[in-house]
Amino acid sequence: MTLTVLSSATREVVIGFDQPFCVIGERINPTGRRLLAAEMATGDYSRVTADALAQVQAGALMLDVNAGIPLADEPRILAECVRLVQSVTDVPLSIDSSVIDALEAGLEVYEGKPLVNSVTGEEERLESVLPLVRRYGAAVVAISNDETGISEDPDVRFEVARKIVERARDHGISPADVVVDPLIMPIGAINLAGSSAFRLIRRLRDELGVNTTCGASNISFGLPNRHGLNAAFLSMAIGAGMTSAIMNPLHGEEMTAVFGANVMMGNDRECRRWIAKYREPVPEGVLIGARARPRRRRRAA
Amino acid sequence: MTLTVLSSATREVVIGFDQPFCVIGERINPTGRRLLAAEMATGDYSRVTADALAQVQAGALMLDVNAGIPLADEPRILAECVRLVQSVTDVPLSIDSSVIDALEAGLEVYEGKPLVNSVTGEEERLESVLPLVRRYGAAVVAISNDETGISEDPDVRFEVARKIVERARDHGISPADVVVDPLIMPIGAINLAGSSAFRLIRRLRDELGVNTTCGASNISFGLPNRHGLNAAFLSMAIGAGMTSAIMNPLHGEEMTAVFGANVMMGNDRECRRWIAKYREPVPEGVLIGARARPRRRRRAA
Repeated sequence: MTLTVLSSATREVVIGFDQPFCVIGERINPTGRRLLAAEMATGDYSRVTADALAQVQAGALMLDVNAGIPLADEPRILAECVRLVQSVTDVPLSIDSSVIDALEAGLEVYEGKPLVNSVTGEEERLESVLPLVRRYGAAVVAISNDETGISEDPDVRFEVARKIVERARDHGISPADVVVDPLIMPIGAINLAGSSAFRLIRRLRDELGVNTTCGASNISFGLPNRHGLNAAFLSMAIGAGMTSAIMNPLHGEEMTAVFGANVMMGNDRECRRWIAKYREPVPEGVLIGARARPRRRRRAA
Repeated sequence: MTLTVLSSATREVVIGFDQPFCVIGERINPTGRRLLAAEMATGDYSRVTADALAQVQAGALMLDVNAGIPLADEPRILAECVRLVQSVTDVPLSIDSSVIDALEAGLEVYEGKPLVNSVTGEEERLESVLPLVRRYGAAVVAISNDETGISEDPDVRFEVARKIVERARDHGISPADVVVDPLIMPIGAINLAGSSAFRLIRRLRDELGVNTTCGASNISFGLPNRHGLNAAFLSMAIGAGMTSAIMNPLHGEEMTAVFGANVMMGNDRECRRWIAKYREPVPEGVLIGARARPRRRRRAA
């Protein structure tokens, strides 16, 4: 059983086949969020704090932190955001950058064992990211593309994943600390994107024995009712063995699909999380439990 | 590839692994619907007609028709309902009764090839239902319980299914015309009801090569937010190979899960059905296509 253990200073999260699905909140990312980017560039992190709290409240078990703002000092901003988010929440983080110096700055200030997002199968990335992952005792997201780009053939993507896992082992990183992203294609463009992703996820679990993650919303790119499609994809991917996703936990449909899939996989003991989340609220004015009992009569003095 | 072909007088529906999931509308059933039962008993079938139309409109590819009303003349009522529903819709029907005479009365008036709902592994049921199925050239739902009741062990349920398939073959009924119901247990009572159902569905597909159906909403019995759980279950069951379900097509969440799963399985070509269903409506007052083109100037006389 492959367990990827991540931690903050005070809390551990385990990604694994018999664990609740690990929702990694994607919101702290200025890409495509102009206002957030502008604020972060000027050192205003109020929205970062708010996004961190809201995502954890919504059920994220980890948070991804990205500070990729054009022309900004990404290493400094990423480090500041990592420190800030760790000060307001206790979930482990995924430190997300394509800039090695930024990854290092984030790792330097991080307390606990984070996920590094990400390495690919490209030679230059392997040899620059993996030594960092090893030095800081982190785990890493392995994206299954290489110098030749993203193959449409899932078997090629599987081989790229295998190569990254092997190279990581050469660097002293256990396969349990490599979380493979099989790369989800938009199903509006590639009709078999779903079924081939599920087959690939099963192979990654059964043959490589690794945990998996993905940018779940890619699947629905360009189609109407994206939340509905993402929800179906997430449940089915979890059924096929996917163990985490980088996603927006503020979307109710997707989270219902995840919580429901946890129940279906037997990873929500006695359906406790499901019941806690969806139990009917008690209507106002109705007394329950102890408060509903008739008041005891005062004992005679 | 196992194809179960059902038909009405004018329309064919195919249940199969590479086909869109076959939603069998469950609403025409007086069990637990006191008003419907009272109306049906007095020959008022207006609600039957309305339920038939609404379910087909919502996406049901077949309709289940049940007339099990205590103390009523079930054979006559079932036959009348079958005839009526066939007169207002063109989808194939599932003729649903535990009373042999009622099944026969329904089969007698049915036009096309229906599904008979159902036979179990009980000796007496096998030998009374299967000859009927054979005589009328129907297909049959095989429920995987027998004289010993419903086993909690999915391997036992698999063996009951195998027995029914073999007995059907002895009666001249092809395995393609046996649609197995693996019996879905409430996950609130049995924590592994989901994962063991998925494993059983996969075995039924891979080892017996049969199509499958189920009463999908059983899974969520007793739990809050049943629609959310049913939706997760349906997507995941379809991912595991389930090919039909007897369910309420008027519930949007469940149907979104089914349509989304069809997309994910590659069984909704170019996502056409998904797009047709969820395409944003054009806001009122906005002209599109031909109507948006500027009016041609009148030619000078």
